[in-house]
Amino acid sequence: MTTRQPFAMAPDLRVSQWFNTEEELSLKKLRGKVVVMEAFQMLCPGCVTHGLPQVKSVFETFSPEQVAVIGLHTVFEHHAAMTPTSLKAFLFEYRFDFPVAVDEAGDNGMPKTMEAYQMRGTPSLILIDTSGRLRAQYFGQVQDLRLGYEIASLLTEARA
Amino acid sequence: MTTRQPFAMAPDLRVSQWFNTEEELSLKKLRGKVVVMEAFQMLCPGCVTHGLPQVKSVFETFSPEQVAVIGLHTVFEHHAAMTPTSLKAFLFEYRFDFPVAVDEAGDNGMPKTMEAYQMRGTPSLILIDTSGRLRAQYFGQVQDLRLGYEIASLLTEARA
Amino acid sequence: MTTRQPFAMAPDLRVSQWFNTEEELSLKKLRGKVVVMEAFQMLCPGCVTHGLPQVKSVFETFSPEQVAVIGLHTVFEHHAAMTPTSLKAFLFEYRFDFPVAVDEAGDNGMPKTMEAYQMRGTPSLILIDTSGRLRAQYFGQVQDLRLGYEIASLLTEARA
Amino acid sequence: MTTRQPFAMAPDLRVSQWFNTEEELSLKKLRGKVVVMEAFQMLCPGCVTHGLPQVKSVFETFSPEQVAVIGLHTVFEHHAAMTPTSLKAFLFEYRFDFPVAVDEAGDNGMPKTMEAYQMRGTPSLILIDTSGRLRAQYFGQVQDLRLGYEIASLLTEARA
Repeated sequence: MTTRQPFAMAPDLRVSQWFNTEEELSLKKLRGKVVVMEAFQMLCPGCVTHGLPQVKSVFETFSPEQVAVIGLHTVFEHHAAMTPTSLKAFLFEYRFDFPVAVDEAGDNGMPKTMEAYQMRGTPSLILIDTSGRLRAQYFGQVQDLRLGYEIASLLTEARA
Repeated sequence: MTTRQPFAMAPDLRVSQWFNTEEELSLKKLRGKVVVMEAFQMLCPGCVTHGLPQVKSVFETFSPEQVAVIGLHTVFEHHAAMTPTSLKAFLFEYRFDFPVAVDEAGDNGMPKTMEAYQMRGTPSLILIDTSGRLRAQYFGQVQDLRLGYEIASLLTEARA
Repeated sequence: MTTRQPFAMAPDLRVSQWFNTEEELSLKKLRGKVVVMEAFQMLCPGCVTHGLPQVKSVFETFSPEQVAVIGLHTVFEHHAAMTPTSLKAFLFEYRFDFPVAVDEAGDNGMPKTMEAYQMRGTPSLILIDTSGRLRAQYFGQVQDLRLGYEIASLLTEARA
Repeated sequence: MTTRQPFAMAPDLRVSQWFNTEEELSLKKLRGKVVVMEAFQMLCPGCVTHGLPQVKSVFETFSPEQVAVIGLHTVFEHHAAMTPTSLKAFLFEYRFDFPVAVDEAGDNGMPKTMEAYQMRGTPSLILIDTSGRLRAQYFGQVQDLRLGYEIASLLTEARA
């Protein structure tokens, strides 16, 4: 690709609570790294069996200096069933130990970050480049082969 | 086996709430059927990936006239995270549509049915014969091949 | 079931060579045991990924005094590719160590036992009761739960 | 990485027969593409269940203009069991439709390409860059995530 596409900046995260991190994160703080963000709900089977284990694997495979992994708990249904209290136990029992943010509740039941990214549902996988631009957003299952390819592409373009 | 072993009666179920059934069930009402009971916690990964899909498969494979499947939600940790409200959404999202009982809370955090059966944890799989006697109790994963074998053994001995 | 159904005797095995057994087997010699026979081809993907591992599991789960497992290599296509020499290496590399018979070549490319049982293809799973009668014949994949159930049913009816 | 490492050229392929390609391939002809080569034996379980499906997925995921996939049948044991005749049926039955080369027989039972690359066994996965240099060689299982990453790294460095 020789033409430069004008990629939009990724919307800021709107977060009410963080797990698995001592300091609050933000996309601005993560500049310089590729960000792999998994938007999920703890009671979404496709998230539990595929999406979350996949980003856990990303978290364990790549250097945290180069690739940041974030889980984003985007509850848009069964709100009373998926509270931060339940989420905390879920993350512990499944050994998901990468940073996880609770998406801030919105007025219409749809959380604010989810709305800003216009996500269609969960799981959604989002890739943000080292300059903070939104580069890919997938709804549903993404192949590991494809994800590894895209992470490397974003890292190597940053070095060039 | 030519000698008759004196099997004990299975302890009664102590239930605070039922899902997926119009009438409250009891072991007494289920006499005449083999009962396959899965004790689980909704945030126990081994229950979600193996135990519950296995009894869902039992529920779909065998005649409800012959084999009764019961899920028993035996919460002994993270109580605030696994309330009946969360359980209801969990059962719906995972399409677990066999009858599920909430084990009655005990004084020490251990629910009453779990205590009566002296279960070691979740998942636990329990087999009760057509006369209401406790015939097998497993902690952890059980092979489908073995489970199918045991269900048939209990059914055919009842016919004999 | 109180009525006795007139099940036909299972056709004899027509075998040109045996692997994994010191003595040649026959259905007559196996009377008194439930026989689980897997008709397969070593280059049939469904046999390699499902059928053969399943009967290997049967072989390891049940007592050889009660349940006999036989693999039957029914080559009806690619004959030059699936010779006994290739089969021997295949059984060794995959650690399939139950007795395996090579079905005797027929005149029309279809081996003789396969023809006698009128099998539709591979994998085919065949169940023979303790009296040598053909009780079930499946083409394609069979659930472990169902197979365990049927093995127990044939064993317990024999005891009755 | 700012220093340039002196990577050796990948040894030429020594091939006695090709499948799934009209013209004979060579590393020289494939310059300009990243080459993903899977050394396998058709009776090696790890190759059949993991390695070959993985490169089939690479073949289906990436553009043939950018990434070339080659299977290399490196028979070093059970030679009589894994002839080209058997291989041809194997490739057909498993629907492995990328180009496959038969490694030329050597004097000591070890085929010549396998010897030139000093492979330890099968499956071995080999990555060759667009200039024909040997960049990675793995014995055993490689994660999809890692493989996708490495393919992209080799492609993007070529563009730089």
